[in-house]
Amino acid sequence: MTIPQTFAGLEPGFDIPALPGMDEAEIQTPCLILDLEALERNIRKLGDYARAQGIRHRAHGKMHKSVDVLKLQIELGGAVGVCCQKVSEAEVFARAGIGDILVSNQVRDPLKIRRLAHLPNYGAEVAVCIDDIDNVAELSAAAQAAGTELGCLVEIDCGANRCGVTDPAEVVAIAQAVAAAPALRFRGLQAYHGSMQHLTSHAERAAQFAAVRAQVTETVAALEAAGLAPELVSGGGTGSYDFEATSGIYNELQCGSYAFMDADYGRVQDETGTRFDGGVWENALFILTSVMSHAKPGKAICDAGLKSQSVDSGLPVVFGRDDVRYVKCTDEHGVIEDPGNVLAINERLRLVPGHCDPTCNIHDWYVGLRGGKVETLWPVSARGKAY
Amino acid sequence: MTIPQTFAGLEPGFDIPALPGMDEAEIQTPCLILDLEALERNIRKLGDYARAQGIRHRAHGKMHKSVDVLKLQIELGGAVGVCCQKVSEAEVFARAGIGDILVSNQVRDPLKIRRLAHLPNYGAEVAVCIDDIDNVAELSAAAQAAGTELGCLVEIDCGANRCGVTDPAEVVAIAQAVAAAPALRFRGLQAYHGSMQHLTSHAERAAQFAAVRAQVTETVAALEAAGLAPELVSGGGTGSYDFEATSGIYNELQCGSYAFMDADYGRVQDETGTRFDGGVWENALFILTSVMSHAKPGKAICDAGLKSQSVDSGLPVVFGRDDVRYVKCTDEHGVIEDPGNVLAINERLRLVPGHCDPTCNIHDWYVGLRGGKVETLWPVSARGKAY
Repeated sequence: MTIPQTFAGLEPGFDIPALPGMDEAEIQTPCLILDLEALERNIRKLGDYARAQGIRHRAHGKMHKSVDVLKLQIELGGAVGVCCQKVSEAEVFARAGIGDILVSNQVRDPLKIRRLAHLPNYGAEVAVCIDDIDNVAELSAAAQAAGTELGCLVEIDCGANRCGVTDPAEVVAIAQAVAAAPALRFRGLQAYHGSMQHLTSHAERAAQFAAVRAQVTETVAALEAAGLAPELVSGGGTGSYDFEATSGIYNELQCGSYAFMDADYGRVQDETGTRFDGGVWENALFILTSVMSHAKPGKAICDAGLKSQSVDSGLPVVFGRDDVRYVKCTDEHGVIEDPGNVLAINERLRLVPGHCDPTCNIHDWYVGLRGGKVETLWPVSARGKAY
Repeated sequence: MTIPQTFAGLEPGFDIPALPGMDEAEIQTPCLILDLEALERNIRKLGDYARAQGIRHRAHGKMHKSVDVLKLQIELGGAVGVCCQKVSEAEVFARAGIGDILVSNQVRDPLKIRRLAHLPNYGAEVAVCIDDIDNVAELSAAAQAAGTELGCLVEIDCGANRCGVTDPAEVVAIAQAVAAAPALRFRGLQAYHGSMQHLTSHAERAAQFAAVRAQVTETVAALEAAGLAPELVSGGGTGSYDFEATSGIYNELQCGSYAFMDADYGRVQDETGTRFDGGVWENALFILTSVMSHAKPGKAICDAGLKSQSVDSGLPVVFGRDDVRYVKCTDEHGVIEDPGNVLAINERLRLVPGHCDPTCNIHDWYVGLRGGKVETLWPVSARGKAY
C-alpha cells in the first residue's frame, strides 16, 4: 500500500490506527471510526431542519473537537460557526480559520482571558459567556489591551443548576455593565439546559422546556425593557432542539451529539416514541474493538476498556449484534458475553459508546470509513485542550 | 520568566499547563500535578519493601504511561523493568531505552504481533502473555522473521475472570508449545487478580489470595512435573502485593497505583485497618482545578469535569478540605458544594481522582511540584497508546 504524503512518517499501530484504503478488519484497535455516510446524513438532516425553521445552528465543537467535522457541519449543514467550552478549544478553531466562535462558558483565569482576547486577531468574531459582573472589567481590560472586541452573552441558569444567574434583574445589570464597557459588546443570552437533553421521554422534556421558555421569555422582556434587546438567544442540544427551534424566543441552536450519536442519546425518544437510534439519528461514531482472548466458554475479551471510552453514562452497546453483549469494562479490557461462542479471535466489533463527548476526548484520530474502506483520517484537533 | 529551551515554542494554556518556576496558583487548569516529594517517598517505600522481602518489582507502566516516572521507579525504587498492557505502550518504553519489558496481556492482531517481535531490536528483553495455544505459532513466526526472541508467560485466570486459562494441564500444554517453538522462550506465569486489589478489607483480600495461592502453587507444581519450572511467577498489585511478596511462590510484583494513589485505593485498608490514604501511601497525583463560577450560594463550579478524569470508580475527592465537596461531574464542569461560600473565583483546588489509570490517560502532561513551585513538566509519554 502506498502511504499518502499526509501520513508519511506516521506508523499505523503506533501513531495512527489506519491508512486510507484499509479494510475495516485491518484497522488497529481500539480506535474511533466514523461512518462518513451516516455522519453526512445526520449533518444534512439537522441543517435542513434548522433552515426550515428559520433558526441558526452553531455546532457544538466540544463534542467532536474536530476541525474537519466542524467544516462538514458548516458546508453540508449550514452551521453559522462553532461553540466550545474552553479557550484552548476556541484557539484550535480560530487557527483553523473558523469565523464565528462562542466560548459557551465562563473564562476567569487571567492568562485564559488574555488568550481569549487575542482570538479575534485570527479573523474570528469571538464571544464568551458571563455570569458574574466582576468578569466584565476583566474581559474589557484584556480586549482593550489586545486591541480587539469580545461579544458577551449573559448566561442564565435555566435548570442545569451549574453556571449562570437566575434573577432577570441580575441579567440586566450584567448586560448593562457589558454594554458600557470598552471593547465589549452585549450580544444576548446563553440559556442551555444540559440535563434536560437526556430525559428519554419527549413529554418530560417538553414539561421542563415549558419552564425554560417562561424564564427565557421573562428575561428577554427585562432586557428589552432596559433597551438591551438580545441579538442572540442561544441554547438547545440534541435532546431538545425542536423545543428551542419552535419556541419563538430562541434564535440559535447549539447541538453537538446529533452528528455522532451515542448509546445514551440512543435511548431518548422523539414525540412519536421512536428512539433516537431507531431512525431519528444514525450512529455514525463507533469504537472499533477486536476480540483478543476467548479462553473460557461464553465470554470473549475485547481490547476496548476504560482507556478507550468514558462509561459515565453507561456501558457501550455492540452495534448490530443481538447475540453478544458488552457487560464489563476495565482499564484495557472489555468483557463480552458470548453465549453461543460465535466470536473469533481478531474479530472486529463496533461499539456505540455510552457518551460520545468524553470518549472522543481520549482519542487522537477519527478513522473515516465509506463503503467498508478507510477513506480518511482526521485528527481530534482539540483533544486534550482542556484549559 | 525565562522559558527553558525544552519548552520553547510551547504555549502555556494551549500546549502545556505550566512552566518551571510557576506558583501552583498560576498553573493553567485543569491539569495533572504531581507532588514530587510524595511520589519519591512512595517509590522508595515499595522499593525498600520489595528489597527486604527479596522479591522483584516490575513497575506497571500502564498506570502512569510515563518514561520519567518509570525511570524514578527504576532509580529510586529498584524496579527491574516495566510491564504494560499494549504493544504501543511497550514501544514507547523500548524507544526510551528501558531494558526489560513485559506486555502483561494477549497480543493477537498480526500487525501488533509484528511490531512486538521487532521490539527486542531496541535492546530490550521483551516478554508477552499467552492464553491460547494458537498464539504460539503466530508469535514464533513473527520473532523468527524479525530475528529476535520473545519471552512468554502463560497467563492464568486466578479470579479476575478475564483473560487467562485455568486448567493446569492447559498451562502445561501451552508452556510445552512455547518451549518447542523457535524464537520463543518459556519464562513463567502471569497470575494477576485485578478485582481483588480493590476490596477494602484486608481480611477479604487475604481470603481471596488464599485461593489464588493454591491455584498458582498447583500450576507451578504441574509445570515442574513437566520439566518446565517457571523462571518468573509474576503478579500482584497495590492492593495485594504483601500477599504475593510473602507467598513463597511469586517472585515478581507488578504494582502501579502505589506511586500516585487515587480515591478508590485510598479507601482500601491495610492489615491494621489503616486506610491506604491514611498513612500507608501518599496522594502524589492530583487534578488541579480552578473555581470558575459561583453565581449561586452554596455551590461553586470548577473547571474539571469528565474530560479531565474518569469517574468509573467514583467522584474525585477535594484534597485537604473538609469544608467543600465535589458532588457532580459533567463534561467540562464539576459542581462543588460550598455551604460556607468560602471558595473564591480562580481559587485552585487539588482533586484526588477516583481512578488514576484512565485519568492519566486523558492528559498530555504531568506538572511536577516541589515546595509549592513547578519544578518540571513530564509528558504522559504513552498517552493514547491504546493499540
